[in-house]
Amino acid sequence: MAGSKVTPTPLLKDELDIVIPTIRNLDFLEMWRPFFEQYHLIIVQDGDPSKVIKVPEGFDYELYNRNDINRILGPKASCISFKDSACRCFGYMVSKKKYVYTIDDDCFVAKDPSGKEINALQQHIKNLLSPSTPFFYNTLYDPYREGADFVRGYPFSLREGVPTAVSHGLWLNIPDYDAPTQLVKPRERNTRYVDAVLTIPKGTLFPMCGMNLAFDRELIGPAMYFGLMGDGQPIGRYDDMWAGWCTKVICDHLGLGVKTGLPYIWHSKASNPFVNLKKEYKGIFWQEELIPFFQSATLPKECTTVQKCYVELSKQVREKLGKVDDYFNKLADAMVTWIEAWDELNPSGGKSAAELVNGPKK
Amino acid sequence: MAGSKVTPTPLLKDELDIVIPTIRNLDFLEMWRPFFEQYHLIIVQDGDPSKVIKVPEGFDYELYNRNDINRILGPKASCISFKDSACRCFGYMVSKKKYVYTIDDDCFVAKDPSGKEINALQQHIKNLLSPSTPFFYNTLYDPYREGADFVRGYPFSLREGVPTAVSHGLWLNIPDYDAPTQLVKPRERNTRYVDAVLTIPKGTLFPMCGMNLAFDRELIGPAMYFGLMGDGQPIGRYDDMWAGWCTKVICDHLGLGVKTGLPYIWHSKASNPFVNLKKEYKGIFWQEELIPFFQSATLPKECTTVQKCYVELSKQVREKLGKVDDYFNKLADAMVTWIEAWDELNPSGGKSAAELVNGPKK
Repeated sequence: MAGSKVTPTPLLKDELDIVIPTIRNLDFLEMWRPFFEQYHLIIVQDGDPSKVIKVPEGFDYELYNRNDINRILGPKASCISFKDSACRCFGYMVSKKKYVYTIDDDCFVAKDPSGKEINALQQHIKNLLSPSTPFFYNTLYDPYREGADFVRGYPFSLREGVPTAVSHGLWLNIPDYDAPTQLVKPRERNTRYVDAVLTIPKGTLFPMCGMNLAFDRELIGPAMYFGLMGDGQPIGRYDDMWAGWCTKVICDHLGLGVKTGLPYIWHSKASNPFVNLKKEYKGIFWQEELIPFFQSATLPKECTTVQKCYVELSKQVREKLGKVDDYFNKLADAMVTWIEAWDELNPSGGKSAAELVNGPKK
Repeated sequence: MAGSKVTPTPLLKDELDIVIPTIRNLDFLEMWRPFFEQYHLIIVQDGDPSKVIKVPEGFDYELYNRNDINRILGPKASCISFKDSACRCFGYMVSKKKYVYTIDDDCFVAKDPSGKEINALQQHIKNLLSPSTPFFYNTLYDPYREGADFVRGYPFSLREGVPTAVSHGLWLNIPDYDAPTQLVKPRERNTRYVDAVLTIPKGTLFPMCGMNLAFDRELIGPAMYFGLMGDGQPIGRYDDMWAGWCTKVICDHLGLGVKTGLPYIWHSKASNPFVNLKKEYKGIFWQEELIPFFQSATLPKECTTVQKCYVELSKQVREKLGKVDDYFNKLADAMVTWIEAWDELNPSGGKSAAELVNGPKK
């Protein structure tokens, strides 16, 4: 497209918001200009609200700092983390679009093995607009990609797939490692470009990273709560993990799909492993209880909307994780507050998955 | 290694057999010579036993035709299919090695994107010798490969992994499609090289193809029964699928891993879709009952060896699938006969997974 005067309208131009949490000027957007410029940005400014964040010219954006969050949510603002990129989920809540893409401000455009710049957003949209296959594994990966299909032995009744709620993208260069792994392997870089997208099977949990993530707000938005992290909280760096575990359990319950794989972004710099260790160490310990909890969590049939599922999950968090640490009682409260705030800002109410897939009830 | 006079000893040279079912001269081995020549081959000749199969010079092999199978197994030979590549499982039974690699005679050496010939067997061995991670998905794929690791959010208690029982390789060029897909997409070729190996999560079934497959005989051998196919049977082309479903259920029960992905072989020609359709059509129909059966199959705690698991599964096949078609009663009988024949030829008896992993009981 280089040299062309006419810019084609990108996919879902008016149906997708890009959510960026930041504490600094958004110079990184320059590199993304050809891919992001026609989309609307929602910038969630973390930290000192008096600081002015510069956004490169030509981008269409709205920006919220802590004062805005407090003003808009009132007492319910307590559910939005401060001094942690978990604050990004406020952007999901105020978006009015069907789709959200969220990216960190230290993520740049990666290149595929042929040297071509990867339009990450376009690949996420392809992932979200094609079905998922959570009930049976296809050995040639995403059967809906060009040049691929279902292999011999794949049941025909399952080939229609289910709606895709989440597209989880990956990272070249700096891998998303925890602090212990960062400390042990300070020089490890991810150079392997794996040309695949796949559905994470039903019943299987995964570590969802918020660095390069897209989802269907209408299908799963209210589950994308990034929890209580950062200022005043005992842990950090588990915001996206928490959202991923809750989201996966709810997607499994509602029959929605989660994909992972392409697209890659270029993750430019590793965060400080010593700082990370301080943020993570309780999470590393608690996680050993959280995973069995989420692996065995079941939701009753009556939970037909994401909101109902999420409130039910908050009850189970209180019941079963409250004894691990009082933090989880606070988190369970915040989960309920989040849903209340979501519903206040999105008054159309929770739609059931059946409605979302088949249109409104008659 | 080209030009070198000294051939290095390949991995597991004396611990692995290559099993090849065939009806024709094995000229295809010429292309595999650099990779297979130092291993022992077990050739299972299908069809007319009076035909002489030529094997290129320099290969170390044993060859079994139908007369040999009948002589060795006596009345139990009824469990070994005739006029179908399912007969290959006889080779698994007579092997005395810890590992088996099986490959079809229309599979050639593939090249990776750099143009280098892929040593498929070496990659399978790497897959089998490194652990699997069936309990939680790692977004950077096999964490044990060079340059990869577990990502942030992966529980530390699960990082040791479990022993790998099966390594399922893929195919470039002709994809492994069923007859309907072959008919609809006669020109589709698989050109996508996906540089990944991953564990199929616990509780997830997959379509296991026998074209390019390796496994640990000690860990899972007795479950690798390719069923009753071909001559005198109502279906074909479900031999490997059947073995895959049984194997996966048993691996999940015993805490063993199944990997899929690399290595690729070059699959040279598509089989006749009209012939395939005739073989498959009952399987396509029955499969809709088989998948829910295997998805819900559970094995009691007392089933601590593969043999015990397999006999238990044969009972469930009779109980629950017998009503689908009388074929499954015959198959259930054959499953028991297979285990009896296995134990006769492998008198050391079934070892429990715990023994295999930790050594013999004291």
